[in-house]
Amino acid sequence: MRLKISFLLAALWLFVSPSFLFAGNVRVSDDTDECLECHRTVTPGIVADWENSRHSKVTLSVAMKTGTLERRVSCATIPAGLGDTAVGCAECHTANSSSHEDTFEHNGFDVHIAVTPEDCAICHPAEEKQYRGNLMSMAYPNLKGNPLYRKLMDTVNSVATWENGKTEAGMPTTATENLSCLVCHGTKVEVKGMKTRETKLGDMDFPVLTGWPNDGVGRLNPDGSKGSCSACHTRHAFSISEARKPEACAACHKGIDVPAYRVYSVSKHGARYKDMNNKWNFEAVPWEAGKDFTAPTCATCHVSLVTADGETVVKRTHRMNDRNAYRLLGLIYAHPHPGSPDTTVIKNSAGLHLATELTGEPVSAFLIDKKEQGRREAEMKRLCLCCHSTQWTDNHFDGIKNAIKTTNAMTLSATRIILDAWDKGLASGLPDNIFDEGIERMWVEQWLFYANSVRFAAAMSGADYGVFDNGLWYLSKNMRQMSELLKLMESARPHGKQQKNRQ
Amino acid sequence: MRLKISFLLAALWLFVSPSFLFAGNVRVSDDTDECLECHRTVTPGIVADWENSRHSKVTLSVAMKTGTLERRVSCATIPAGLGDTAVGCAECHTANSSSHEDTFEHNGFDVHIAVTPEDCAICHPAEEKQYRGNLMSMAYPNLKGNPLYRKLMDTVNSVATWENGKTEAGMPTTATENLSCLVCHGTKVEVKGMKTRETKLGDMDFPVLTGWPNDGVGRLNPDGSKGSCSACHTRHAFSISEARKPEACAACHKGIDVPAYRVYSVSKHGARYKDMNNKWNFEAVPWEAGKDFTAPTCATCHVSLVTADGETVVKRTHRMNDRNAYRLLGLIYAHPHPGSPDTTVIKNSAGLHLATELTGEPVSAFLIDKKEQGRREAEMKRLCLCCHSTQWTDNHFDGIKNAIKTTNAMTLSATRIILDAWDKGLASGLPDNIFDEGIERMWVEQWLFYANSVRFAAAMSGADYGVFDNGLWYLSKNMRQMSELLKLMESARPHGKQQKNRQ
Amino acid sequence: MRLKISFLLAALWLFVSPSFLFAGNVRVSDDTDECLECHRTVTPGIVADWENSRHSKVTLSVAMKTGTLERRVSCATIPAGLGDTAVGCAECHTANSSSHEDTFEHNGFDVHIAVTPEDCAICHPAEEKQYRGNLMSMAYPNLKGNPLYRKLMDTVNSVATWENGKTEAGMPTTATENLSCLVCHGTKVEVKGMKTRETKLGDMDFPVLTGWPNDGVGRLNPDGSKGSCSACHTRHAFSISEARKPEACAACHKGIDVPAYRVYSVSKHGARYKDMNNKWNFEAVPWEAGKDFTAPTCATCHVSLVTADGETVVKRTHRMNDRNAYRLLGLIYAHPHPGSPDTTVIKNSAGLHLATELTGEPVSAFLIDKKEQGRREAEMKRLCLCCHSTQWTDNHFDGIKNAIKTTNAMTLSATRIILDAWDKGLASGLPDNIFDEGIERMWVEQWLFYANSVRFAAAMSGADYGVFDNGLWYLSKNMRQMSELLKLMESARPHGKQQKNRQ
Repeated sequence: MRLKISFLLAALWLFVSPSFLFAGNVRVSDDTDECLECHRTVTPGIVADWENSRHSKVTLSVAMKTGTLERRVSCATIPAGLGDTAVGCAECHTANSSSHEDTFEHNGFDVHIAVTPEDCAICHPAEEKQYRGNLMSMAYPNLKGNPLYRKLMDTVNSVATWENGKTEAGMPTTATENLSCLVCHGTKVEVKGMKTRETKLGDMDFPVLTGWPNDGVGRLNPDGSKGSCSACHTRHAFSISEARKPEACAACHKGIDVPAYRVYSVSKHGARYKDMNNKWNFEAVPWEAGKDFTAPTCATCHVSLVTADGETVVKRTHRMNDRNAYRLLGLIYAHPHPGSPDTTVIKNSAGLHLATELTGEPVSAFLIDKKEQGRREAEMKRLCLCCHSTQWTDNHFDGIKNAIKTTNAMTLSATRIILDAWDKGLASGLPDNIFDEGIERMWVEQWLFYANSVRFAAAMSGADYGVFDNGLWYLSKNMRQMSELLKLMESARPHGKQQKNRQ
Repeated sequence: MRLKISFLLAALWLFVSPSFLFAGNVRVSDDTDECLECHRTVTPGIVADWENSRHSKVTLSVAMKTGTLERRVSCATIPAGLGDTAVGCAECHTANSSSHEDTFEHNGFDVHIAVTPEDCAICHPAEEKQYRGNLMSMAYPNLKGNPLYRKLMDTVNSVATWENGKTEAGMPTTATENLSCLVCHGTKVEVKGMKTRETKLGDMDFPVLTGWPNDGVGRLNPDGSKGSCSACHTRHAFSISEARKPEACAACHKGIDVPAYRVYSVSKHGARYKDMNNKWNFEAVPWEAGKDFTAPTCATCHVSLVTADGETVVKRTHRMNDRNAYRLLGLIYAHPHPGSPDTTVIKNSAGLHLATELTGEPVSAFLIDKKEQGRREAEMKRLCLCCHSTQWTDNHFDGIKNAIKTTNAMTLSATRIILDAWDKGLASGLPDNIFDEGIERMWVEQWLFYANSVRFAAAMSGADYGVFDNGLWYLSKNMRQMSELLKLMESARPHGKQQKNRQ
Repeated sequence: MRLKISFLLAALWLFVSPSFLFAGNVRVSDDTDECLECHRTVTPGIVADWENSRHSKVTLSVAMKTGTLERRVSCATIPAGLGDTAVGCAECHTANSSSHEDTFEHNGFDVHIAVTPEDCAICHPAEEKQYRGNLMSMAYPNLKGNPLYRKLMDTVNSVATWENGKTEAGMPTTATENLSCLVCHGTKVEVKGMKTRETKLGDMDFPVLTGWPNDGVGRLNPDGSKGSCSACHTRHAFSISEARKPEACAACHKGIDVPAYRVYSVSKHGARYKDMNNKWNFEAVPWEAGKDFTAPTCATCHVSLVTADGETVVKRTHRMNDRNAYRLLGLIYAHPHPGSPDTTVIKNSAGLHLATELTGEPVSAFLIDKKEQGRREAEMKRLCLCCHSTQWTDNHFDGIKNAIKTTNAMTLSATRIILDAWDKGLASGLPDNIFDEGIERMWVEQWLFYANSVRFAAAMSGADYGVFDNGLWYLSKNMRQMSELLKLMESARPHGKQQKNRQ
């Protein structure tokens, strides 16, 4: 009886408080110990985060002893000095210090501020490599280095003035870009000298960083690397659980231009997540469908190593677009996914950095081919098939393709109106900024907001996001209103004139 | 002492893991056993769902032995063969097989794909009957079978083209309707022959279903029935807990046209739900106010059997509109609730299939009378009175009526502008499509979006959804902008002409 | 072993069910006992709420014995008769009865309906005093008593008609205002005689209250006080946990005009809250960063007593704007925070009740000075520094200032367009209503919606709310469309005329 009680208690204990499981006796390095001595007082919040994290509880030697499926680290051998202590402050903030421009002398240590994917790659090289193959890692240059998209950015971020009946757009400041597009795309983090700052422990010298703080997925780091693992695995918990929850993705994938989280929220999968996530196990590696969770989150379909009935369904990938046959968002038309994460190389026949012509035809040389599309779709479908029949799954994907066709057609119609407006001199087209005038703004919203919403709704069964919540109702209304505005502008201008309508 | 410990342990066990309570020893039928043999491997996710469900844990015989208030089944006697085994795969997917057009031979069984309300009615006949009395069960014909609303659907779903300065709306495809309005309203599920499909266990023949997958509330099923219980009680968990949480309703009641969930979320009830739902008991039948929950969810007011201080407050009903005195959403004006779930029979004096005239007067013959309105309101108020005083409750309902009056008046004003536009030939009115032109679109949003939002806000104390979040600000702004657009269109057209302005 | 088991069990018990901790043996007063006798049956929901609340479990004497940091009451001595019983129905609803116009005779007691901050101040005088210094406490007069803002209210709430080609705005009713702006700002609760009402226990007489029910933060109460503690600490639980969760604030701070909750939701802090709040301790006083929570909620930064590593970081304050250096929302331009909670005293050089000129220059006499701004910012930053470095924090606040500068500039540009419109007679400016015409509405949205959204996004790192989700994209688009509309209106009007364009 006593034994039985002990056993039950142990079982209960495990059940009730999994976060305590790994607590305990892992030794920290002398360097980290020295960091903690002050930082426990100076920044107690992040120390607490780390203490609750797996990094403080499991040494790399132990982490590497687990089976292949259970492993969360991907290094082949134990890097020097990292085997038998916790992964603490010093292990990350003094790693690769010579390649970091933000390295500075701090109480006897060569410390750098921004921990980057290159630093994480010491223990997680496979994930870092996959991530480099991911569009997200190129989110900064793909936006700012594309001459066409650069103009869309400028349209968004510049302060316009109104003088003598004319609008005049100023030059956008980096400070404003950093608060806007680059929050998600990532800033350029640069070192601009040193500065003495007041701290709780007296004055100290620190490098001055511009573009900081930022956790954008394509951040340009002071060591030359791109991205921020903290975008999803927030410092200093670096939690797998957090990254597996849709709220991690919502930070950047909730807005009207990319309503993934909103659509998920009204889907059956989302409703189940909200109902049951407290009973799911977000820590388990591998992640077993039906056992650890009973509806997918973003990570299930796009990132995690998933098993079902004990067998691997899909492998872990940090190339987030690895199962995306199409590029649905952010562009004028949906099209087969770009082949390379660097999309600045793409040019259409008119010399625009676009993967389609303005009238929608894909520029296939830069896009994945049908075979690779098939591979990606098949990979994604394997996940659906854990709970759904082949027919269910096939029909669902037919729906996505129909949504792409329908929304591309509605975008083409709106584009034809814009081409007419340019042709008639009612708006100024290429080589001018094609995103700034009133009717052009409506055109941008046609594809950037409404077409996207319909496609996401189809991809995740998102109900009203396909119709009245920025869906087909807006897609058709916007086109109609564009056409009526064109007529009105035409009627309103002095007769006989084909003037340029610049303000 | 040992006894005490055992007792405490038992108590803790129950408290900690109610989901394990019923686990265990219910026998599955031989047929279901055969299903499980393959499907445990083929679709492990849904098998896990079912294993966690009540259907796998309680036999009908046991379910029928509970007291009247506790009973979740409503059949009078035990249907043949269903008493002593779990309600498993075969029990539902081979039920009523002869009336299902989607029945097919599958490893020796006559299996059908779509489980319908008729199938569920074997054990839950009262709920199925109530549901048939519910507007939702008629969501397909009430939309697609109403000639006026059919045009609104077409406006939303057709692909328009722009050629030679003219928009031309094409015919909408069923595929697009299925991704749009019919996701919630329900598709028509039809069998179109058979097809051999690749499966994990080799090639097999399955019926080809169109309009599938779908969980819409008014789905037309291959057995002739309407609806899908899975809309709220998602397969294969069929959970009462899930259906009682507002997220179940959010799937279809969150959009700008029916913002119930959004309004609830910012209400006091919603804030409490978010704060405390983890401590509530969503499984209890009956559902005791103050004990099992301390603020209502959608289900509390519209569906569930609720008790307070041990006495029945309201009975369970699956006629969801049973306590709704008014129809608030989806129509040009709010009005007394329709009497029949089939609203295709409704016609106003102009021959339009509307429960009001275009100028707002209700067509009373098709609507519930004051007495029935009183009954419904009194029923709803009984729930409020569990926590609120009579005055609080009465004043709250006066607020709803004021919102109806105010929003109907603002809709009438917008309608008068549209009537003027038609009269002046600035837009083309009846018998043409009255929902497609720019100014008509604004009029649609007046009632379909903004008036609704104000009414929902009043009904659930939804704060900003009554004002700036699609509420009165938009209602008054939209009307103003309609009036100014009308003036602008008038000024812009060639003088002396009363031409039709068709594009 | 037995002892150890008992100990473990006790630990588990505490861990599993903190809500049971204080249950038990507190005596209720005879008066409250009499209330409960009926109300347990009549309104069981609120009795259950109270029974689960701290008020039912801890006497004032016990509450006052805790250490200074742990204390939740702020009275210096125990008020007569309140020391040794629970704080029950009678303790609040019969307090200060002579100053309450809503006091009535109820089964032998002088009971009042609306419990007000004055009543709560018996035990919580410091919080009530702080709250009186808070803008929120003046939310009713600051809106309705400001002649300019009164017109914005009227624009929102009046029913407009359309007759003979003209819009005519009617007078708004109090009933509609109570459903709209005043839901959050607070209604005026007045006693209008007595009425006999049917109750479960027979007919009874009650005062008739107008503006009731309401929980607005600036409610005018029948005892002359302002506000409602129940706005955040919902009756009858009066929970500190509820008020510390962002959903409490979301009720009024979620809409497009003040999107605090939405922005928080997509911030790192919000993502962490959603991921981990079930593991946080929302009951602890003081509230220890890193231990009780690992990311701030609204209350952390604006209200709560927060400690870190055992030391006080910030003191509790119910003057919610105590750490706000700027006023970000609701006004044409962001500017230093008003000095007094009563903003009706503010007037600019043109005699408008605005803290800035129409062209943005602050009217400094009514605003806090740089020193007080510095104090408030430093106070807020102390919270950031629990987890972030000085540089991180300073740069973050620089971002807020840049957002203020950028959005103010974009508002000024839009204002210049409006000034032009007034000047050219294309809209009617002062002293007319400046919020009602189409182009004026666009101008209102420039600052009330889009500029706010950008500022909140900067203040809380809210990603897309700074760009496409009502952010900079809309700010620049709206200005552009205003400018084009102005041109169109100008072209459309009869040539040579500078007519007033009134409809």
